[in-house]
Amino acid sequence: MDFRIEDISPEEIDRRLSVVEPLTDSVRQLVDAVIRSEVSDDELRAAQAQIDDVVAALRTKQRPGSFGTPFTKTFIGMPWGNAAVGARNAIAPPLRIRRSPGLAECEMVLGAAYEGPGGCVHGGIAALLLDQLVGEAASTDGLPSFTGTLTVKYLRPTLLGALSARAEVTGREGRKTFVRATLSDDDGATVEAEAIMICPKGFELPTGDALPQPANSRDDL
Amino acid sequence: MDFRIEDISPEEIDRRLSVVEPLTDSVRQLVDAVIRSEVSDDELRAAQAQIDDVVAALRTKQRPGSFGTPFTKTFIGMPWGNAAVGARNAIAPPLRIRRSPGLAECEMVLGAAYEGPGGCVHGGIAALLLDQLVGEAASTDGLPSFTGTLTVKYLRPTLLGALSARAEVTGREGRKTFVRATLSDDDGATVEAEAIMICPKGFELPTGDALPQPANSRDDL
Repeated sequence: MDFRIEDISPEEIDRRLSVVEPLTDSVRQLVDAVIRSEVSDDELRAAQAQIDDVVAALRTKQRPGSFGTPFTKTFIGMPWGNAAVGARNAIAPPLRIRRSPGLAECEMVLGAAYEGPGGCVHGGIAALLLDQLVGEAASTDGLPSFTGTLTVKYLRPTLLGALSARAEVTGREGRKTFVRATLSDDDGATVEAEAIMICPKGFELPTGDALPQPANSRDDL
Repeated sequence: MDFRIEDISPEEIDRRLSVVEPLTDSVRQLVDAVIRSEVSDDELRAAQAQIDDVVAALRTKQRPGSFGTPFTKTFIGMPWGNAAVGARNAIAPPLRIRRSPGLAECEMVLGAAYEGPGGCVHGGIAALLLDQLVGEAASTDGLPSFTGTLTVKYLRPTLLGALSARAEVTGREGRKTFVRATLSDDDGATVEAEAIMICPKGFELPTGDALPQPANSRDDL
């Protein structure tokens, strides 16, 4: 796994995000517009030609492989390619995750790009968001945590639109952390998840009250 | 849920796909390029302006809400907005799922847009793909099937790159169908999933050998 150090200042992080976040938002709009557009075939082909031009320009200088997960020396993470929360990744819905010890929460609006059954959120998208959130809740002590097992129960259809999600640590046992999470609409939970998270060997486990502060995203700056 | 009838011919379906599939591929390239590009901020801003122009042109005529899941009268599905397999949805990796009774399989190449931990497939993306595949395997008899519970076990990290996935029905019990699935690299399974799928009330359950043929995607035309 690629966890390189890229030691830039918080100000430089903010500067870079101020450029890429609006760009990513525009790409999200494009993903949505391509799904919903009813313009003529000729207009669709013209759109494609313009997109291909933009891609060619962006690719004149590009990182090989994937974005990876760089960190500063003070352990501020920049997971900007991440499929669920990456600031440069248009697959990720725009999320602002709030963290406190053992807890991660966010609100979101899921549109046409996240559809499964007609008008509903794809069950796998619900799983993607909850997988990210259980990872965030399990790692608010600053240690990395990977999903070992994720069990997702679909209680009823989740309509596209405004939703909230919440993940909370329910217990710890050695390198395992147990997390429960929900995706909810205004009427309550539509999807429930339980996760067993694993802290990889080689990382020191927290002891007692001496938990480091979470510092793994821009929200914590 | 929106399951409208749009009764067009298989030829018209192919004609429409011949326009939107290349367009969606171009948007996928754009999603990837925005993640990986290292051009200057000015060039990124110029790219954004061009993308905004394309979005505006596409939105001059567009469907309200989401794409939905239209079917022809002969039950050929057009889930083109689907987040895992939609022909118009750039979030979906390009998959060609092969189906036979109780079985669904596909190969795929997952690039930078599907990253979680550095260099690895996001666990939630693995869940998204396996959720789609268990649904496809459970519904090869032509009846709809929704995920009730999905349990995903992460055996080891899944590196970005060429992968295959397979889902197989292991049993049925009334309206429940049990499915087992794997995501694999060249060295074997990296992620395993078990699903309990539910056929909604109001649909007739198959009896004995009289299973209708699968007809829920373009691959079956």
